[in-house]
Amino acid sequence: MAKKKHDANDPSLKSWIESANTKDTEFPIQNLAMCCFFRPGDDPAEGALPTCGVRIGESVIDLWELVSARLFDDLDGVPYENADIGEVLGLGAPNLSLFAQNPKALRVAFRNRLSEVLRHDTAALRDNPYLRAAAVFDADQVDFAPPTAMLNYTDFYASIHHATTVGTMFRPDNPLLPNYKWVPIGYHGRPSSIVVSGEAIRRPIGQQAPADGETTPGFGPCKLLDYELEVGCYIAEGNELGTPISIKEARERIFGLCLVNDWSARDIQKWEYQPLGPFLSKSFATTVSPYIVTAEALDPFRCAAFKRAKGDPAPLPYLSDSQDQKSGGFDITLDVYLETEQMRKAGKKPHRISSGRGFKDMYWTFAQMIAHHTVNGCNFHAGDLIASGTVSGPGPTQRGCLLESTWDGPGKPRKAVELPGGEKRTFLQDGDTVILRGFCEREGFKRIGFGECRGTVMPAGV
Amino acid sequence: MAKKKHDANDPSLKSWIESANTKDTEFPIQNLAMCCFFRPGDDPAEGALPTCGVRIGESVIDLWELVSARLFDDLDGVPYENADIGEVLGLGAPNLSLFAQNPKALRVAFRNRLSEVLRHDTAALRDNPYLRAAAVFDADQVDFAPPTAMLNYTDFYASIHHATTVGTMFRPDNPLLPNYKWVPIGYHGRPSSIVVSGEAIRRPIGQQAPADGETTPGFGPCKLLDYELEVGCYIAEGNELGTPISIKEARERIFGLCLVNDWSARDIQKWEYQPLGPFLSKSFATTVSPYIVTAEALDPFRCAAFKRAKGDPAPLPYLSDSQDQKSGGFDITLDVYLETEQMRKAGKKPHRISSGRGFKDMYWTFAQMIAHHTVNGCNFHAGDLIASGTVSGPGPTQRGCLLESTWDGPGKPRKAVELPGGEKRTFLQDGDTVILRGFCEREGFKRIGFGECRGTVMPAGV
Repeated sequence: MAKKKHDANDPSLKSWIESANTKDTEFPIQNLAMCCFFRPGDDPAEGALPTCGVRIGESVIDLWELVSARLFDDLDGVPYENADIGEVLGLGAPNLSLFAQNPKALRVAFRNRLSEVLRHDTAALRDNPYLRAAAVFDADQVDFAPPTAMLNYTDFYASIHHATTVGTMFRPDNPLLPNYKWVPIGYHGRPSSIVVSGEAIRRPIGQQAPADGETTPGFGPCKLLDYELEVGCYIAEGNELGTPISIKEARERIFGLCLVNDWSARDIQKWEYQPLGPFLSKSFATTVSPYIVTAEALDPFRCAAFKRAKGDPAPLPYLSDSQDQKSGGFDITLDVYLETEQMRKAGKKPHRISSGRGFKDMYWTFAQMIAHHTVNGCNFHAGDLIASGTVSGPGPTQRGCLLESTWDGPGKPRKAVELPGGEKRTFLQDGDTVILRGFCEREGFKRIGFGECRGTVMPAGV
Repeated sequence: MAKKKHDANDPSLKSWIESANTKDTEFPIQNLAMCCFFRPGDDPAEGALPTCGVRIGESVIDLWELVSARLFDDLDGVPYENADIGEVLGLGAPNLSLFAQNPKALRVAFRNRLSEVLRHDTAALRDNPYLRAAAVFDADQVDFAPPTAMLNYTDFYASIHHATTVGTMFRPDNPLLPNYKWVPIGYHGRPSSIVVSGEAIRRPIGQQAPADGETTPGFGPCKLLDYELEVGCYIAEGNELGTPISIKEARERIFGLCLVNDWSARDIQKWEYQPLGPFLSKSFATTVSPYIVTAEALDPFRCAAFKRAKGDPAPLPYLSDSQDQKSGGFDITLDVYLETEQMRKAGKKPHRISSGRGFKDMYWTFAQMIAHHTVNGCNFHAGDLIASGTVSGPGPTQRGCLLESTWDGPGKPRKAVELPGGEKRTFLQDGDTVILRGFCEREGFKRIGFGECRGTVMPAGV
């Protein structure tokens, strides 16, 4: 008996979780964003570990409970015979790194089954109040944890608009360095200081570039604190040290995407970054959104890679793939909101300070970044994070950091961002909350979102 | 009854393990270098995990077996009452990161007890053939594993001789950048590609700087493969994100030291490193020696911090500590040996290509590096690795990498290193084995060594 193949991206799908069916939800049944959270009552301070989950509507669901209830038995794509599905899936772990290591076929089969379980007409969980009580929670009643182990974190510099604007500040006649259009420029970031959305950000202290004409550096709380709007990519299957991932294979190694705020201390950065790159100006905190929007959920929102200008070099063969050129991009609308303490006290809503679809215009695709990252044999572990670098669109309202958006041209004073209530910002002040948001929409598909990537700046010191 | 306090560094101590009492051993009972190894017959390919050990003479000892045999009950310094000593020490883990997290007093008490257990006149293990059979193995019969989890890895640039020589190559009139004497320059390295001594190193492939006058980069196997002689420092207790480690506290956060070969692809590095620092030129492999020579074993070999020249700025207050200035350095003799395939076939011994005590002359101490690294609130996990950067002494025979040791001045061709049998090297060739060694000696103390940090270059490709 041939069963009609279930399409988890079918826009007509509805869930028995009613909040997933509203017009404005970021988490319809077509999203099934994965996450890790602490079950209500579980206290990490007492040693409790998070559990793997899925966000749907206003709910989060403990996936291990569903696996234990045998809702995922007989999945297609299991690479071992007679294996215990719970062990294979790895969803009993306190993060999604083990799950990420599964081959794509199994991750897809899992997603399809999960979609079926949550579909409006499937009774298994819907009509089982005991299982629902054990597995389904209000998303605003739980604390989230970083979704994978993120043993390694790499930050790229893939937005040509960002690189050009920032380059112009330092080299007005020659903003892009000669390697930019050949090399997906990146650097190793700090895994230890990655935090999940909602955690407070302590303003860093450090050495700062000497004032003009001076030789002695400043020291103290950062005065030029900035956010950076980025998109992160979680790696699925890792690779062995010494074994590159080809550009063709790279596409399937994308587990899913998230939002990243790569907080940056510009005055510390300016002084420290020569000759070995940014260090303490970044490693005080990096915030990730709690959710992994899977590559499968994003499939409908794929778009062509950035179209190079006439005269730009073609990517070297190890970075070239026709499928990647056709659909290696993602069309994501990214918004940045700022909420100051004064606004909060006045009951004002966060103010959107930039918005755009600049992620379509990244000079390099994630597949290119993965192929480049491993061409030297460097190994990924499943769940590793690579981030795109600041995402800026071509226009001045689409810039992904204050360093850029307050830039008004060589020699001119910075042009402050204006906020409701008469406040202005050139850089972040204590009490400011930065909120990144992202969503994908396309005619004929259900709109999906990334959730929030939020952090509030706390004063320096303890 | 007052017991005479046992001094684990007493040079007159002897062990019942006879190979620890020879004149030339690097691992006398005064060293007690810690490590992780696979017990004979345990196959990592079948999922076996390494065990925590100590190296003494020609033996390695499984510390978990000793803990299980209750040889460490009633230690001083245990921070919890009625705690199970095995759980507290954390030596049942597959690496030493849990052990490293213990407060210094407990690590010292453990070391003293271990020294007593191995002392010539202590019968507990010596006269227990069952326990000896379970716990004591020939060091050359086991495979070693990385000694800690090394969740985070940072590489510094602390040798002023190295920075000056390399700077001279690019900026003959102005070799040191203005920040060098203020900032302990460092960057985040790649944890995933750290391997333990003995693992083969695959020559990396990548983009290389265009030839002079060209604009198109090269691509292929690295042509300028180099080693970098470094000293690594394992962090003991970690710190919470947002909570700096002061220079005074930093000294006690040094768990121990090791040797590091930070393999470097110079042609890849030259092309990629602007503006965000070295990336794929380093992340194909970093080799660590198997042993952690503890801070306690190194205490007798402490020396003054580098004496700054007249006119050099004083370290900023957060990097200043009188005790650190007096004894924040380590006097280690470091040797680099090279063995080519031709030499191996001809039965020739590895040839020493550099030797020196340049580690005394590092511009920054490890305590300064730790205080700097955390001043912005960046957090360490116990067992994290920071490396010194290439260690070069003042003289031409004490240079820590080929980039430096074959440098003969601006505009001149590189001066090849000459090897027995008539071979020459400006950079490494396939089949070359690089061996780093280090030892400490001082009148009135027993000489101790670091063991080997060894790697052989394999051809590019799989």
